[in-house]
Amino acid sequence: MAMTRTQATTEGQEAAALLERTRAAVLPRLRRTVESLPGSIRSVAMYHFGWEHPDGTPAAGRVGKAIRPALVLAAAGALGGDPQRAVRAAAAVELAHNFTLIHDDVLGEDPTRHHRPTVWTVFGTPDAIVVGDAMLALALRLLAEDPDPVASAASARLAACVIDLCAGRQADCAFEERGPLDVTLDECLTMAEAKTGALLGCACAIGALYAGAGEAQVEAMDSFGREAGLAFQLIDDLIGIWGDPELTGKPVGADLAAHKKSLPVVAALTSGTPAAAELAELYEGPMDGPAVRRAAEAVDRAGGRDWAQTQAADRMSRAVHHLARAVPDPAAGGDLLALAEFVTRRAR
Amino acid sequence: MAMTRTQATTEGQEAAALLERTRAAVLPRLRRTVESLPGSIRSVAMYHFGWEHPDGTPAAGRVGKAIRPALVLAAAGALGGDPQRAVRAAAAVELAHNFTLIHDDVLGEDPTRHHRPTVWTVFGTPDAIVVGDAMLALALRLLAEDPDPVASAASARLAACVIDLCAGRQADCAFEERGPLDVTLDECLTMAEAKTGALLGCACAIGALYAGAGEAQVEAMDSFGREAGLAFQLIDDLIGIWGDPELTGKPVGADLAAHKKSLPVVAALTSGTPAAAELAELYEGPMDGPAVRRAAEAVDRAGGRDWAQTQAADRMSRAVHHLARAVPDPAAGGDLLALAEFVTRRAR
Repeated sequence: MAMTRTQATTEGQEAAALLERTRAAVLPRLRRTVESLPGSIRSVAMYHFGWEHPDGTPAAGRVGKAIRPALVLAAAGALGGDPQRAVRAAAAVELAHNFTLIHDDVLGEDPTRHHRPTVWTVFGTPDAIVVGDAMLALALRLLAEDPDPVASAASARLAACVIDLCAGRQADCAFEERGPLDVTLDECLTMAEAKTGALLGCACAIGALYAGAGEAQVEAMDSFGREAGLAFQLIDDLIGIWGDPELTGKPVGADLAAHKKSLPVVAALTSGTPAAAELAELYEGPMDGPAVRRAAEAVDRAGGRDWAQTQAADRMSRAVHHLARAVPDPAAGGDLLALAEFVTRRAR
Repeated sequence: MAMTRTQATTEGQEAAALLERTRAAVLPRLRRTVESLPGSIRSVAMYHFGWEHPDGTPAAGRVGKAIRPALVLAAAGALGGDPQRAVRAAAAVELAHNFTLIHDDVLGEDPTRHHRPTVWTVFGTPDAIVVGDAMLALALRLLAEDPDPVASAASARLAACVIDLCAGRQADCAFEERGPLDVTLDECLTMAEAKTGALLGCACAIGALYAGAGEAQVEAMDSFGREAGLAFQLIDDLIGIWGDPELTGKPVGADLAAHKKSLPVVAALTSGTPAAAELAELYEGPMDGPAVRRAAEAVDRAGGRDWAQTQAADRMSRAVHHLARAVPDPAAGGDLLALAEFVTRRAR
């Protein structure tokens, strides 16, 4: 996993170019699909994707980076498939991802996402619930209407993945209700795997399906995406404590202020160190500015920061191992590796 | 549509027996599918279906009447198909219906359903949102994993129907925000068709698909279910004003107390009569007991009650017409007709 700065930069540029190409290939299909929604739910969905202002006038568009669609297309390409064949499935995966974003913002009462007011703050919670529902149905409709012979296998995988996602999101909410010392690190890792790993794994597996891959290759691709997804979540959790608000749209320490039991926090809380006890005590009370700073220091001293960095590197090396199983030719797996490195290098 | 009392009773008994047989055929599959959900979302779903108490201990089970699965199986049978082949699809339709119930109770802040506390009141709104999401994914997963060659067409129809449902539910919520004279009867009918008609139509259409029916027959079946569904909604709205709380689990006048713009209310509000103005004025204020009674009288005097009864009869006769197109042999369509009569005769 050790890379020189030049290698890292090159891979970063590769990934950026790949994401750009993915957006060019997938966004027209994604937009056409969203535009097919009936009535007012169309306007709400168009707002969510940044294609319209709340009053329905056209907006410049602030769609996400399209990492999941890029994984679908790159996985198909890596196994010798035609990425074009998987464009519809890539759009479906992105719709499923955005369904979770709309509902998660309701669950977390998050006021902004990527510096824009979230759907529920603009249109109200009922609209956010209903439009999220419609977006999930739209994702699965897109696959159900795909005449490709692998579409129903892809559809079954995506639906199963959404169920995992829901289990992970439910656990995430439940953890917030529990005391600071009442969540184990294993539970937290299982939750993160379901909440974040599952959809990245599913994206890669669906790409493999559209390349006509067999069961073993599809599973190896799923494992690659899952492990890379967990590495991504670990880095994301580190950013939630120490990261750059310009990059994330969230203030530094936002996760601590919200008493979030993120992976580095739970690693710290369960470390048995004096700093763990200090952190637990802080988490019992209100988290103002000074408390957030002290909590961040306590996570660090309790080893939560180091643990998360080591764990992220370990997950990435497992991801690379699974990728080698799925795609024996290292050159063919280059795009997938570049994407995995890209998503896990956001913190630096 | 005129029937003697004896005919009506016989059809009622037929329908009851049909629903009983449907529950015997579909519930084991439905329950097995719900039991496959992971983690805590399984418990919440089991509670919703009445199979478990909130603490996870077994409960007697208070599942719905299974009207939608009965329509799936009866439609398949009416067109010469083997209803057994459509059991999985019938369970999928029931799951989709229950996904909407769980989310609708959140949207409407309804505390009880069939005399039991709703999911959001027992487990909280976040769990209700997430478990509803999982139930929708489970419905579409069940069809995606069905090896039957018509499963993907069924899946596409169900996903499209859920999108219609979402549009209808969104319109329903939006109407509540608007002034009493600001919703037209046409808008209200379109909303009811999407909110209630769509899924009953979809159930019949899916049954037709599993009988190997062609496009025209599938569409005629869809229209039959849609029109019967609208008749059902009209009767349900009448019950929401004058109905029996023992039967509905809701107090008399519940829809009026909630300022609901149901079909008879909007018909009354848009009637241009003096009673319409009186009703509009009542709807501008808080609806206590006396106000509810006066509003019910105003709906009646403005012609809203008569209109809804006539409209329900008209929709049923349209349903019968579509049924005759789909199933030329009246004997073969008997079960479907009995079901349609059953759902629209609840008020008597």
